[in-house]
Amino acid sequence: MKTEDILEKFKKDEISKEEALRFFARQPFDDLGFAKTDTHRETRQGAYEVVFCQGKEDDFLVKIYQRLLEENGEVFGTRASTHQYELVKKYIPEITYDSVSRILKYEKEGKERIGNVAVVTAGTADIAVAEEAAQTAEHFGCNVKRIYDVGVSGIHRLLAHVDEINEANCVIAIAGMEGALASVVAGLVKNPVIAVPTSVGYGASFEGLSALLTMINSCANGITVVNIDNGYGAAYSAAQINRLAEKK
Amino acid sequence: MKTEDILEKFKKDEISKEEALRFFARQPFDDLGFAKTDTHRETRQGAYEVVFCQGKEDDFLVKIYQRLLEENGEVFGTRASTHQYELVKKYIPEITYDSVSRILKYEKEGKERIGNVAVVTAGTADIAVAEEAAQTAEHFGCNVKRIYDVGVSGIHRLLAHVDEINEANCVIAIAGMEGALASVVAGLVKNPVIAVPTSVGYGASFEGLSALLTMINSCANGITVVNIDNGYGAAYSAAQINRLAEKK
Amino acid sequence: MKTEDILEKFKKDEISKEEALRFFARQPFDDLGFAKTDTHRETRQGAYEVVFCQGKEDDFLVKIYQRLLEENGEVFGTRASTHQYELVKKYIPEITYDSVSRILKYEKEGKERIGNVAVVTAGTADIAVAEEAAQTAEHFGCNVKRIYDVGVSGIHRLLAHVDEINEANCVIAIAGMEGALASVVAGLVKNPVIAVPTSVGYGASFEGLSALLTMINSCANGITVVNIDNGYGAAYSAAQINRLAEKK
Amino acid sequence: MKTEDILEKFKKDEISKEEALRFFARQPFDDLGFAKTDTHRETRQGAYEVVFCQGKEDDFLVKIYQRLLEENGEVFGTRASTHQYELVKKYIPEITYDSVSRILKYEKEGKERIGNVAVVTAGTADIAVAEEAAQTAEHFGCNVKRIYDVGVSGIHRLLAHVDEINEANCVIAIAGMEGALASVVAGLVKNPVIAVPTSVGYGASFEGLSALLTMINSCANGITVVNIDNGYGAAYSAAQINRLAEKK
Amino acid sequence: MKTEDILEKFKKDEISKEEALRFFARQPFDDLGFAKTDTHRETRQGAYEVVFCQGKEDDFLVKIYQRLLEENGEVFGTRASTHQYELVKKYIPEITYDSVSRILKYEKEGKERIGNVAVVTAGTADIAVAEEAAQTAEHFGCNVKRIYDVGVSGIHRLLAHVDEINEANCVIAIAGMEGALASVVAGLVKNPVIAVPTSVGYGASFEGLSALLTMINSCANGITVVNIDNGYGAAYSAAQINRLAEKK
Amino acid sequence: MKTEDILEKFKKDEISKEEALRFFARQPFDDLGFAKTDTHRETRQGAYEVVFCQGKEDDFLVKIYQRLLEENGEVFGTRASTHQYELVKKYIPEITYDSVSRILKYEKEGKERIGNVAVVTAGTADIAVAEEAAQTAEHFGCNVKRIYDVGVSGIHRLLAHVDEINEANCVIAIAGMEGALASVVAGLVKNPVIAVPTSVGYGASFEGLSALLTMINSCANGITVVNIDNGYGAAYSAAQINRLAEKK
Amino acid sequence: MKTEDILEKFKKDEISKEEALRFFARQPFDDLGFAKTDTHRETRQGAYEVVFCQGKEDDFLVKIYQRLLEENGEVFGTRASTHQYELVKKYIPEITYDSVSRILKYEKEGKERIGNVAVVTAGTADIAVAEEAAQTAEHFGCNVKRIYDVGVSGIHRLLAHVDEINEANCVIAIAGMEGALASVVAGLVKNPVIAVPTSVGYGASFEGLSALLTMINSCANGITVVNIDNGYGAAYSAAQINRLAEKK
Amino acid sequence: MKTEDILEKFKKDEISKEEALRFFARQPFDDLGFAKTDTHRETRQGAYEVVFCQGKEDDFLVKIYQRLLEENGEVFGTRASTHQYELVKKYIPEITYDSVSRILKYEKEGKERIGNVAVVTAGTADIAVAEEAAQTAEHFGCNVKRIYDVGVSGIHRLLAHVDEINEANCVIAIAGMEGALASVVAGLVKNPVIAVPTSVGYGASFEGLSALLTMINSCANGITVVNIDNGYGAAYSAAQINRLAEKK
Repeated sequence: MKTEDILEKFKKDEISKEEALRFFARQPFDDLGFAKTDTHRETRQGAYEVVFCQGKEDDFLVKIYQRLLEENGEVFGTRASTHQYELVKKYIPEITYDSVSRILKYEKEGKERIGNVAVVTAGTADIAVAEEAAQTAEHFGCNVKRIYDVGVSGIHRLLAHVDEINEANCVIAIAGMEGALASVVAGLVKNPVIAVPTSVGYGASFEGLSALLTMINSCANGITVVNIDNGYGAAYSAAQINRLAEKK
Repeated sequence: MKTEDILEKFKKDEISKEEALRFFARQPFDDLGFAKTDTHRETRQGAYEVVFCQGKEDDFLVKIYQRLLEENGEVFGTRASTHQYELVKKYIPEITYDSVSRILKYEKEGKERIGNVAVVTAGTADIAVAEEAAQTAEHFGCNVKRIYDVGVSGIHRLLAHVDEINEANCVIAIAGMEGALASVVAGLVKNPVIAVPTSVGYGASFEGLSALLTMINSCANGITVVNIDNGYGAAYSAAQINRLAEKK
Repeated sequence: MKTEDILEKFKKDEISKEEALRFFARQPFDDLGFAKTDTHRETRQGAYEVVFCQGKEDDFLVKIYQRLLEENGEVFGTRASTHQYELVKKYIPEITYDSVSRILKYEKEGKERIGNVAVVTAGTADIAVAEEAAQTAEHFGCNVKRIYDVGVSGIHRLLAHVDEINEANCVIAIAGMEGALASVVAGLVKNPVIAVPTSVGYGASFEGLSALLTMINSCANGITVVNIDNGYGAAYSAAQINRLAEKK
Repeated sequence: MKTEDILEKFKKDEISKEEALRFFARQPFDDLGFAKTDTHRETRQGAYEVVFCQGKEDDFLVKIYQRLLEENGEVFGTRASTHQYELVKKYIPEITYDSVSRILKYEKEGKERIGNVAVVTAGTADIAVAEEAAQTAEHFGCNVKRIYDVGVSGIHRLLAHVDEINEANCVIAIAGMEGALASVVAGLVKNPVIAVPTSVGYGASFEGLSALLTMINSCANGITVVNIDNGYGAAYSAAQINRLAEKK
Repeated sequence: MKTEDILEKFKKDEISKEEALRFFARQPFDDLGFAKTDTHRETRQGAYEVVFCQGKEDDFLVKIYQRLLEENGEVFGTRASTHQYELVKKYIPEITYDSVSRILKYEKEGKERIGNVAVVTAGTADIAVAEEAAQTAEHFGCNVKRIYDVGVSGIHRLLAHVDEINEANCVIAIAGMEGALASVVAGLVKNPVIAVPTSVGYGASFEGLSALLTMINSCANGITVVNIDNGYGAAYSAAQINRLAEKK
Repeated sequence: MKTEDILEKFKKDEISKEEALRFFARQPFDDLGFAKTDTHRETRQGAYEVVFCQGKEDDFLVKIYQRLLEENGEVFGTRASTHQYELVKKYIPEITYDSVSRILKYEKEGKERIGNVAVVTAGTADIAVAEEAAQTAEHFGCNVKRIYDVGVSGIHRLLAHVDEINEANCVIAIAGMEGALASVVAGLVKNPVIAVPTSVGYGASFEGLSALLTMINSCANGITVVNIDNGYGAAYSAAQINRLAEKK
Repeated sequence: MKTEDILEKFKKDEISKEEALRFFARQPFDDLGFAKTDTHRETRQGAYEVVFCQGKEDDFLVKIYQRLLEENGEVFGTRASTHQYELVKKYIPEITYDSVSRILKYEKEGKERIGNVAVVTAGTADIAVAEEAAQTAEHFGCNVKRIYDVGVSGIHRLLAHVDEINEANCVIAIAGMEGALASVVAGLVKNPVIAVPTSVGYGASFEGLSALLTMINSCANGITVVNIDNGYGAAYSAAQINRLAEKK
Repeated sequence: MKTEDILEKFKKDEISKEEALRFFARQPFDDLGFAKTDTHRETRQGAYEVVFCQGKEDDFLVKIYQRLLEENGEVFGTRASTHQYELVKKYIPEITYDSVSRILKYEKEGKERIGNVAVVTAGTADIAVAEEAAQTAEHFGCNVKRIYDVGVSGIHRLLAHVDEINEANCVIAIAGMEGALASVVAGLVKNPVIAVPTSVGYGASFEGLSALLTMINSCANGITVVNIDNGYGAAYSAAQINRLAEKK
């Protein structure tokens, strides 16, 4: 046990009092002044920090990207704008950007992928969120199966893919408007379903609130829900589940 | 044309000026003081007035039931309590009450029923609303097919009844919680679907608001929606559609 | 019965095992990768797929328009922008666009229209939604009667058109602000009324929520409701009713 | 002008300095410890204080009733329960209670009434609120015309009373559910309409919120709105208007 | 009585049957196709139709302005944009526009003003709404007293104007943010207060909802409320009250 | 492949046409009339049907319990009342009831439990929901670690249990009021966290809405959310994850 | 510094390794199994733990009261019912209960009070919340001045107490309905105002939401807000401020 | 006492009656017509008026800045745009602007600062609000300690600063998304915490509503809350507390 080691070493004068005190005081993060990048996160949680680009000031964003790349040899950010891509590219020329998913990243080559996460959408308008989810899951080491535009108004399109969906360790079900897809999917599969409401819709969809309520109130078993349009969050949890299922 | 007739008759002194004036002034309702029963409704809308019993004071309720029975030879009320049943029974012994649907009525015998209305529910807890709908539709002259507990979390239960549902001129789809049933049904049939959200649920179902939003935002074609728990309203509209489909 | 036929034919070797298996496996939709156009919808529901243009990416939109036109000889989309019109026009020169209704379509000539659907609005600001409804109903084969700007603040304007409205198999009542029009109309006619709340208004109209609540809570019989500004949805249901009323 | 008088009197030694100081310091209310009854209100606003009984503790209520009766020779309270009636009766035997309006009062005999306020309701279930309004208006010296159960689902019932309603200096329009009555009434009359939403309804009426939004968003001119079920508040304002119209 | 006159004239052959029938059938509005201008409103309500410019299409707006000017010799519209001013000016050069109140109008010269309406605001940001109210009240023949920036956070500013405010027949109290002004004003005056919540604020003011709720729930007597930012509506009602108070 | 087998057997006359047809037509549920118990669920989803007791009519409840016990040798229901316990006990004497979790069940003895699910609560008032979760997880074969009353207002209580919580395959974090617990927990562990908002709180907690929004908007990675008070749903998903983590 | 002391003592063998380890591991709370009473709170925050009685199970409540009394020689709980009073009294006979504030406590005699906190209410119905605040502030060592029933509808009642209110280090302003009191008070005083919205009101007060929004949106400086009816929370913060103001 | 002095001086003819009357009538504000700048505020509240720039018209803004600078030798405004900076700069060249905090001010040099206010944020996106708070607190004479990006998803970052935060007389805790920071901070410190929800977030954060509800419902003691993004308001109250703590 670490605390014990420090105590023993201090007693044996292998470390000074200052070193011992520093141990108890040290901070497992990197203080940039305006930000404290969580360099300890990989140890603690198994995944290093991801950047939520939206709303970050230019100056801050560049420094955070540089710092994380330096620390981890990779950097991954979501909800980046074209402007932010062009900005970061000046400092990190190897950065890449996908305008559908809005992911701005530099990944090591040849990363291994394991298991199976299915990403299912109700409509084509949900694809932006779906790609954020799919590419995040891939970044965190999952094989991903994409099944798009299988909403419940033509249930046969979904039924045609049931076996495929059932092979996944975790299913990410993405839908806007009334969001009924998640309930139907969860009734058909045996592994966990993570539902992502999207802001696709109009009128009383209230920017995704309707789909969120639908999914939270689902009568089906095995559904949990993330925030509206939060493809990233669903993929992070799905990757945790996929890793648990595939370990050893 | 009636106005013309009155004018002519008045000119020919077949009616007095007072009679003519009364024609233009007369009110096609019956003024009970506290209520104005709409005795003109059957002529105007093809169905006489139905009583919404909930919240009516005892004294008023009895007088309205008596007046409508006298006028139409029938009387039909929704959302009646056991107390109201016992009260009205003292004055109208032939009245009948169904504690599931909470309908309090006296109907003529041997009423003809035409066409086909399907009443479909997601769960067993939706049956009270479903029976209000089914019995109202029967009262307004529809044959009714009941298909209960076919919610989307076990989609095969619904799929087993698709042909049967498709035979109806109009489908009433009733669901609480996330209310996804209506979208799936509407994607499978070709006639109009009237969706009834119910207050069945808990937590973020907000007494039926979640199901209402789901149904209003449905991505399927051919859905229209009524108020939460409003089985009566759905059945009234379904009966209009059924009558249009079956006329001649 | 079809399954029986397949079984018999297979037994008699009129079809191979592969053909029989394909029957049970085949998917009644056309997979474009990003979208699965529902080519089976006309058989199933009596109307082929309509495109909701808003938010569709350029590339996807063009391919969907091309595919549906090819399949059906017609294509019909709602909520199209001027940009989308110009885009699709490059690939389908015969496409037409109406900037009030925002409908982007190519229709066969000489389509038959039957029956009678009335489209009624409270104000002139509701006309965009009304035209989406009216032109959709016409597309699905209805004769349409337009009666605009008859809101309840000058009830005589509505009363002057009661007979005309009463001739329709179905009435679409469109109103923003407080949305009271639908209740008054439903109290005057005997056929179904489909109410469309619009986002016309300001302040506590909350982008149409006020009108939606008004219509959902209507004290009149025979009203069902669709989403805010959903002229298309109201017309689809109205066309179903009109078809039922006119068949044979 | 009063301040001037005090100054002059003080200078002429007609009043002492203590009396002058007291003038500037005195508090125009009566401090009961737990309550400060506003004995100055009649001077300031033309009507003495009315008691909102609901939620008042027994002990406080009795003392407030006694104090106001002593001060004004009358006392008037709204939203009183039967229990509160029985309680106050022990101390003020001449008190009277009306179980429909829930008004608990003692009024001087032979009070004069002027002008004309019309109280109009959509349904019979709105009568409790209507009677609170009507009896409050009468208490504040108005002649009141009651016109009940003339909701918009049978518009002819309302049209039959237009002339009568138009004679009022102010119209109080009371409705629950979708609350459309106020808009129609305001479009027909030329004097101010005060709209009172009621909590009558179910489902998405949200305890009167729907009717409140309807009335606040009315497209008609000449409507102002008070709180849900606030018959008292509507009547207070109506009495102010009636008094202005009838003065001299 | 008019109906009687028609009957008598018809009997005496002073008018033909066609003329008599036309009387009962005629529509007291002017049908422009897209709009039905309410030419009967002045007779019915004592004020001709005012145009709500916002959202009106260019073509429609011009025609409505022309038609109303022709009919009444005046025309008055609210919520007009600079664009709309320039547009209408081409057809009606004498039109005037005030960019603060956003009122676009042509008024007859030398119109008489009577009585006294006070327009009171909490802050300077409420002035746009206040000017819409003040100029509307002036258009409808009221003398108007403007008292701006007397919000409750510095109550002495309001108290300094109490006597002035108390002289008005009707007070329009305008406030955003928490909207407390109306309650304080109503506690100080004896004539009706019409409260206008404004969308001024941020965060949890929810575009005026907070101020609306404050005003609707006011504990003071004599307050009624109109929609958020609805200066016009408040002024219309205030003008009705002012006219009643000043008549004869 | 099954369909193939049936086809082959039919061709070889090993089964009759009737038997083949029945295969394609059979319904994998048991129709009780008022309910269709999903007897196919264990095959499809790995867990048989659980009863949501709340709101079920007595008669229906007994029949469903009997049917499921007969089918599975076990029966498990949530949200049961004491009344329902006493009712079911008459028919199934071996049934047991826990008044804290409100679970009504009969379980086989000696069921194996695997893995590790942690159930963590913010306060003692969340224990009812926590026990529903814990006992459900145990029913579905999980070892469960309970850690109660470690809310964030005394963060040291939570920090003292971090290692213990980190051993779980899945953490269920349960909190009412502001629901901040889930974010802090998710920031400390590496496996999935399922957050359960509870209705514990008062005032602006709006029966759990506040906690739900907190959890849905969490800035931490690895959180997914279920409905307010839905301990059962969280446990079902946690059991799926635990099973995936422990399989083989 | 403490960590340093432990290190030194350990090196000098004044404490054993076990004692040193225990220092770093010890948990500053008392684990009752179902609850972890925060015995460390007084050291950390300057006030020991207070019990929120509402919703606590009988058994848990008694044990928590006993444990805290034992630890601190005092115990203080809010929102206790009469039933809970009678229950706790059996085990702690010296406990006292105030049915207005619903506080259940045992306090040491002769506690010192310093400074000055003013508790101001709009109406008599706010007194229950006010007493919870006043008695809590007294429990935490403040002198308290109570000024009740000075709502803004009679502003002179408030103005008569301005000097008195201004003497307080902190003012707690309590109001339901429209909650305008806090803004007016904050505009008149120079020390911090803590606003407490109450659930007093009806209709669109939505159980205190209206007053909460009013207070959060206040245009006055120096207001902060606590939860609806949270007299305790306001008093806790006020006591912190009072202590800061009076220290030394 | 002042009133007494005036009375005495008047009696002794040291002042005229006009002067005496003016004393009672005078208004402690400066009337600019469109605005009444509160020149009395420093006397009354200890801080002169601050300008809320957002939404002020150009003309008004310039005049208010000029007037306040003239009166106080300083001027301080929040939520100013770059446009407003450039505008005011023309008239007041010494004005300065900070684009992060959006503060537009001219401050006297060498202002003294006392005490200690800590400004703590959950993320970097909250820095704009934090700087508004920090610079406002500095303007009102506080020493400020900034601690940014210590959100609860990496709790060690916060724990590393606990001692530093605990030194402050008042802590301003700023967070968007789920806003959990405030509860954790309040559980760790002994002085008052003022929580500022920010509009940072997406989806169901509803522009800061989620964070506001979290903070209002906090289970921790010693938290009070201001409006969404209201850094200014938090700092004003914090400065009041800091001043109380440091006086003498």
